[in-house]
Amino acid sequence: MSSSSPFTDEQIAEWASFGPKLKGKPTPEQQLEAQERKKKCADMKERLAKEINDPVNWTEKKIEKELDRLVEEGLESTAVRPSYLDGPSGTRDFYPPEMRVQNWLFDNFRETAKSFGFQEYDAPVLENVELYKRKAGEEIVDQMYAFTDKEGYHVTLRPEMTPTLARLVLGKTNLQTGEVRLTLPLKWFSIPQCWRFETTQRGRKREHYQWNMDIVGVDHVHAEVELLAAACFFFQRIGIGPDVVGIKVNSRAVLEAVLAKHGIEKGKKDADGGDIFEQVCVIIDKLDKIGGPAVTELLGEIGVGSDSAAEILKALEAPSVEELANQVGTNSEAVNQVKRLFELAEQYGFGDYLIFDASVVRGLAYYTGVVWEAFDRRGELRAIMGGGRYDRLLEKYGGEKCQIPCVGFGFGDCVIMELLKECGKIPDFASAGPDYVVCAFSPDLYGTAANISWKLRQTGATVDLMPTPKKKVAASFKHADQTGARRMVFVAPDEIEKGVVRIKDLRTKDKNGESIQVDCPLDALDTVDELVAKAVESE
Amino acid sequence: MSSSSPFTDEQIAEWASFGPKLKGKPTPEQQLEAQERKKKCADMKERLAKEINDPVNWTEKKIEKELDRLVEEGLESTAVRPSYLDGPSGTRDFYPPEMRVQNWLFDNFRETAKSFGFQEYDAPVLENVELYKRKAGEEIVDQMYAFTDKEGYHVTLRPEMTPTLARLVLGKTNLQTGEVRLTLPLKWFSIPQCWRFETTQRGRKREHYQWNMDIVGVDHVHAEVELLAAACFFFQRIGIGPDVVGIKVNSRAVLEAVLAKHGIEKGKKDADGGDIFEQVCVIIDKLDKIGGPAVTELLGEIGVGSDSAAEILKALEAPSVEELANQVGTNSEAVNQVKRLFELAEQYGFGDYLIFDASVVRGLAYYTGVVWEAFDRRGELRAIMGGGRYDRLLEKYGGEKCQIPCVGFGFGDCVIMELLKECGKIPDFASAGPDYVVCAFSPDLYGTAANISWKLRQTGATVDLMPTPKKKVAASFKHADQTGARRMVFVAPDEIEKGVVRIKDLRTKDKNGESIQVDCPLDALDTVDELVAKAVESE
Repeated sequence: MSSSSPFTDEQIAEWASFGPKLKGKPTPEQQLEAQERKKKCADMKERLAKEINDPVNWTEKKIEKELDRLVEEGLESTAVRPSYLDGPSGTRDFYPPEMRVQNWLFDNFRETAKSFGFQEYDAPVLENVELYKRKAGEEIVDQMYAFTDKEGYHVTLRPEMTPTLARLVLGKTNLQTGEVRLTLPLKWFSIPQCWRFETTQRGRKREHYQWNMDIVGVDHVHAEVELLAAACFFFQRIGIGPDVVGIKVNSRAVLEAVLAKHGIEKGKKDADGGDIFEQVCVIIDKLDKIGGPAVTELLGEIGVGSDSAAEILKALEAPSVEELANQVGTNSEAVNQVKRLFELAEQYGFGDYLIFDASVVRGLAYYTGVVWEAFDRRGELRAIMGGGRYDRLLEKYGGEKCQIPCVGFGFGDCVIMELLKECGKIPDFASAGPDYVVCAFSPDLYGTAANISWKLRQTGATVDLMPTPKKKVAASFKHADQTGARRMVFVAPDEIEKGVVRIKDLRTKDKNGESIQVDCPLDALDTVDELVAKAVESE
Repeated sequence: MSSSSPFTDEQIAEWASFGPKLKGKPTPEQQLEAQERKKKCADMKERLAKEINDPVNWTEKKIEKELDRLVEEGLESTAVRPSYLDGPSGTRDFYPPEMRVQNWLFDNFRETAKSFGFQEYDAPVLENVELYKRKAGEEIVDQMYAFTDKEGYHVTLRPEMTPTLARLVLGKTNLQTGEVRLTLPLKWFSIPQCWRFETTQRGRKREHYQWNMDIVGVDHVHAEVELLAAACFFFQRIGIGPDVVGIKVNSRAVLEAVLAKHGIEKGKKDADGGDIFEQVCVIIDKLDKIGGPAVTELLGEIGVGSDSAAEILKALEAPSVEELANQVGTNSEAVNQVKRLFELAEQYGFGDYLIFDASVVRGLAYYTGVVWEAFDRRGELRAIMGGGRYDRLLEKYGGEKCQIPCVGFGFGDCVIMELLKECGKIPDFASAGPDYVVCAFSPDLYGTAANISWKLRQTGATVDLMPTPKKKVAASFKHADQTGARRMVFVAPDEIEKGVVRIKDLRTKDKNGESIQVDCPLDALDTVDELVAKAVESE
């Protein structure tokens, strides 16, 4: 069956692309094609045989046969498979094996958040479109999964969680006084699914999950430090060291000082009313992708002279905030905050993960101060996580009294999974099976087997009761083995008559290498551990 | 602040309903109104003062003042609160206190499922509309949260999970042969959010979560028994005994035999092409709500004579499947399966939860055999959980080769929460705070406090590092107390100079009733438990 087949979908597709085998007498042209096909097939078989490197089970002939079968199976299924059996474009299904990995990742998010004293919240995946327009202007609506409901309301699958967080905090705020009816600071986290509607590109997803961590009500850099610490604690926890990932830290407030030196002040508008500072940020954000000369050109287009552009670019390369401050001759509070952030990260214990990078500005409009972005040191993946301070957002939503400082980050589930796969850091769940597999010898013993399962579960054990009784122990063992179970209970008449049940511990072997087995009284199923321990001792 | 205010929103609304206090000189009519208002206010103040029973802090005068303040605050906020600060109609926000309860409930769902050897899966909240039309006809689309996306696809927020499960199973099935490329039986669970679009009624939600448990590939009653066992294990786990809830069990196959006696055979159509068996099921499903005479009338309308109706109604009251079988003189395989189900439930250990009820048919069209429904014995709530066998569904989606038997249940999160609240079974999370609250005495000690937090977290502890240093121990204690923390670490210069830090264990008292405190070396923060234990011993 294809589950035990060593071939990937890509390989099957490659094989299919060579076309079908010729049947009957070929024309001269067809003969040429057939030769070409044969050559391609032979090359691929040889390549695969080398890769698999199992000359007993996977001869070239066997490989050809299996690939032919898989292609045929695929053609059959696509031929009749109705479109409603696919999920909507750009979405993912999580079968149990993928779900186990996702749960493992989310547990690590959750446990990290809890070990930092953060509290979980949640909100509906559906929000009013107005919530995003208010913050980011009409254009963001184009990338949203938005629609008009049957009552005429404009709603959307949320594109990100921060506006929802703002809504929740303001839901407990007196907008007239700015007083928050919750004890500040809030340290909140959530793992929402977020959606965007892009014209489909191969492999681009329309949904992802995003671990959100936010601190509300702290106006100094300790909040940034705490969030960065949590992210690094998470990396450490899943075995990703500072040699593999780093976090680039910058401050928009520092950048402001740099740009101000060149006449680009925050709030200054161009002829069309656009904010020049914002425009420069957008251009700088592209530096990584388009390079220095292209940035200089773009800056020129909005009126930044080439000398200024050169100096700005030089400043963006400063290896530390101190050097940057020296270069531009500024020593603002913003610079001090960044300095303090790096000092504290060292003392905290996660300094190795951080580097200063004056070119990091982040894409979102609402950041006001420190911003950061986690990246893989090999530079092959997109940003792993991004965050920063957004002190003005709640004011934008709730009015001028709501000057409530906020810092937060969003950490998607896709890029980190790519990295974990590359590093081989995803745990093997092969032995994560149930504590017990229970099997009845015959239908009349099924009730007894069920009762044994019930009692074992009362002790906290996980028990997989096989729904269909089996006369043969071997079949039950196979199931226990496949699911990675720890112990096997075979409910057979001989033992039951004596008031006991035989339990094999598949992970504990005796001196002959056989699984230890014990007979446990039916009225003392909470003593299995002791019985197994005793049996081991008496070995 | 209102968080410490003893008044409920309902009480504030009641106070507000008395209207505003009169200002200036009243007209004679106004005078009368003012007197009435005064009387109502006085009554309410007296009532509340008695209820609160705290004559020192909550005098009638204080109560009046606070209620006036709360009403004013409420008026202010509603006056200016923009509509985008509310979530979409019929949805719920989960602030941390509600989220804690939800997580507790879901953990119990999840742990139960795991202890029965079920594996978790998930799929997108968005599905193609076609998936539901195929199963239940066009009319269900009216109750769906459906829309047309920007590319013209008809999609919907899923109304239920079973069609998605079918889609996933068929995604691993060769539709030509019916061969499933997964090891059967599957025991799968999920806790999806499901949506429906109803015209808004007060208090009716448009979303809920639903614990889904399904067994795929078992064609006999052991599957039903296993699912019922899991539901009862869950009830037992959260402290809901068989005295509080019961599960009504029936079989549509048994009902078929009953109706066949009266000429109502499955598949028989009326003049308009409607399935008469289905129509009778729909009418019987209403028995609880509309009563016997109304059911007789409705049955008459579709051509069932009053004698037949009387006998059918009598059969629906049969106290056991045996009695029903006797009454209608049938002894089909369906009857034997139900008998066997009740026998096995007894042997399994959860028989007390089950009762036979021939009138339970369930609303969903796709059930084919045993069906059930959990209810509160006081009869005050809607159904808590419902399920049954649906052996034809995969065939309907995947074609005639896909005859894969299935059984499953859906268990919503709302009704069970109502029941748990009524029974007082929701745990108190007051002492579920972090293991440690860490506070720095001054900003220059913040890095040290951070490093202590980092090291404590490495030992697996949950640590709430207070972002703002505090000179006063009292303020930190208050925070530790409010969050239900177990230990308090106050990082002060005297101890740090000696290389130690002082830790108070707030849940362990010495003989004078004071919290035990220990000085722990900074390089041995993994020994706190031992130090506390030693201190207790030396008491």
